[in-house]
Amino acid sequence: MNNFIFQNPTKLIFGKNTISNLTKEIPLSSKIMITFGGGSVKKNNVYSQVTKALDSHNYIEFWGIEPNPSVQTLRKAIALGKENKVDFLLAVGGGSVIDGTKLISAALNFDGDAWELVRNPSLINEMTPYASVLTLPATGSEMNRGAVISNTETQEKYSFYSSYPKFSILDPETTYTLPKFQISCGIADTFVHVMEQYLTKKTNPLLMDRWAEGILQTLIDIAPRIKKDQTDYEAMANFMLSATMALNGFIGMGCQTDWATHMIGHEVTALTGVTHGQTLAVILPATMSVLRKQKCDKILQYGERVFGIKGNDDLTIDKIIEKTKEFFRSLELATSLTELNIDEKIIFEIEKRFNERKVKLGEDKNVDGTVAKEILMACK
Amino acid sequence: MNNFIFQNPTKLIFGKNTISNLTKEIPLSSKIMITFGGGSVKKNNVYSQVTKALDSHNYIEFWGIEPNPSVQTLRKAIALGKENKVDFLLAVGGGSVIDGTKLISAALNFDGDAWELVRNPSLINEMTPYASVLTLPATGSEMNRGAVISNTETQEKYSFYSSYPKFSILDPETTYTLPKFQISCGIADTFVHVMEQYLTKKTNPLLMDRWAEGILQTLIDIAPRIKKDQTDYEAMANFMLSATMALNGFIGMGCQTDWATHMIGHEVTALTGVTHGQTLAVILPATMSVLRKQKCDKILQYGERVFGIKGNDDLTIDKIIEKTKEFFRSLELATSLTELNIDEKIIFEIEKRFNERKVKLGEDKNVDGTVAKEILMACK
Repeated sequence: MNNFIFQNPTKLIFGKNTISNLTKEIPLSSKIMITFGGGSVKKNNVYSQVTKALDSHNYIEFWGIEPNPSVQTLRKAIALGKENKVDFLLAVGGGSVIDGTKLISAALNFDGDAWELVRNPSLINEMTPYASVLTLPATGSEMNRGAVISNTETQEKYSFYSSYPKFSILDPETTYTLPKFQISCGIADTFVHVMEQYLTKKTNPLLMDRWAEGILQTLIDIAPRIKKDQTDYEAMANFMLSATMALNGFIGMGCQTDWATHMIGHEVTALTGVTHGQTLAVILPATMSVLRKQKCDKILQYGERVFGIKGNDDLTIDKIIEKTKEFFRSLELATSLTELNIDEKIIFEIEKRFNERKVKLGEDKNVDGTVAKEILMACK
Repeated sequence: MNNFIFQNPTKLIFGKNTISNLTKEIPLSSKIMITFGGGSVKKNNVYSQVTKALDSHNYIEFWGIEPNPSVQTLRKAIALGKENKVDFLLAVGGGSVIDGTKLISAALNFDGDAWELVRNPSLINEMTPYASVLTLPATGSEMNRGAVISNTETQEKYSFYSSYPKFSILDPETTYTLPKFQISCGIADTFVHVMEQYLTKKTNPLLMDRWAEGILQTLIDIAPRIKKDQTDYEAMANFMLSATMALNGFIGMGCQTDWATHMIGHEVTALTGVTHGQTLAVILPATMSVLRKQKCDKILQYGERVFGIKGNDDLTIDKIIEKTKEFFRSLELATSLTELNIDEKIIFEIEKRFNERKVKLGEDKNVDGTVAKEILMACK
């Protein structure tokens, strides 16, 4: 077990009809900017609940933060926020809206260009307080300090770390009308967030292993229920809770972590636009296969505890990887690059980028351009 | 799943040689009172590490917070703190020292008597910031806002709730020299904290069930390792982490909880002085047995997932309860009141107290004096 420091101050407000809590959670004296995505919140009643709760507050709206939020869009929000002397941000949407809002929060008190903050977060001085109303469970952004921002000009996508949301409101009923593909990608994203913290070394805390397996088991239990009935409250609530708990630090205490699958996935998204969760469903099984030797102990533990597959040879590992793919396929996600029409040019470009950046990923810091290419080749 | 609000701001600093972090965690301008128990920290090197880290700080010491901290002792600490205009408290010890320090923290800014705050926490105004260096994993007090305070004059013991520690430092190596009985009681306490939040209804979040089971499984895995070698770092670190995670809100999100076993246990301790964890090992199996009908679904789930006992009849439930007792006996704890020389007079006194106070405990609010007596009779 590694030494660690853990602290997560975000207030989680969870359950039915909780959006009305906004009234008392945001100080009445605040000058708020509410940030939104493309407009689905107007169809599912979230927008009306938010504006009703903030009826007596002073707010402006910024619309149009896209999936894989781009610095190009966010610059406009930052300009609007500065112009209006905004001192509180409320993100209403999924991980992309919240991630984008984290950059706005960091940039409102910064004179330079926002992309500088993404590339060098040590420049972040004071964050404007922000909070969220989550409508799409997936990224965990509602209860962590990470964000992933894209640059459409350079086709780049980077993570940066800032401060935690003051609070996040999670009403599972807001997820009833989400497109099926987004839910599948959210489940895959959550699953892989767990695997990145779990599928590394036997030296991780025994308790963290159990908690990671607990999220995986929950996702496997609820996925067919959600497929059958997206208004199954208990299933959607467990999905929403699992997504938050998968990436808020709770299962990573004292752990060696990986993140190679995510970093490769971000490149695929940056270069092709394929949805994040979908890229992970393709890449994770290949990462497991290519790194089967170093991950052998944990792959076998995962297979036995999560899927009940016993054994300790290479064939068992194949079975476990196949079972993982089967789970992603049960979500109607692709598990190969071919299905996504992604060809070798993209693979070579990612190899080149990793080599240029001298990237060394994974718990053993051995996933460089060459290994990334090997993983991507195994995704074909 | 119930609606819930979760927020836990405590900073957890975990691992080897982490006590030195005190230097930077407590502002140099603070006027600190360090609170201690009976003196074991002088033998295990914790005292010297703490005082070395605070070498340049301004501090006074208060010694003698006893197990089941009494308001009688704490009044002395409060007087000393007021006299010295203390503005930061550091508890160094186990749950009793931390619990006691919570009352000191609440009382330093209160003009009345501290016992009033225990009986009516709404009187708490401003808490003096406090933190802890934990040396005995058990109560979870290092990362929650609860405390249990005794009154030796009236033989009463009550919980009260205040604010969270600013930070807590947990170095598993500080537990190497703990008496075996204290470790066993700490494991039992942790086990029962989990059961109180888990063994209620099937409507609890599926994920919380998994996480609760994960702590129980971890305790069962590490208990024999600890018995064999109390300097097994990984085992002690997992014990320490489990104890904190069992009662910091992490496994209780959206759950119906019980706490009848604890409340009955507190009375037994108040009346007989038997150590808290030991009382729980006696009472939990009896609570399971007496309330087997209302808890049936969860007892069977617990039996299957934690012990691998399959079945769905009354005999299966008996087996599961017996297996739970076996676990406590493997810790060399008593599992009956007879072994502890506690007779029926105590049982009748607890029945009387519960009836007088109109107590109604448990997830179904049906554990009154009569049911408590029934549970205690089943402990004989």
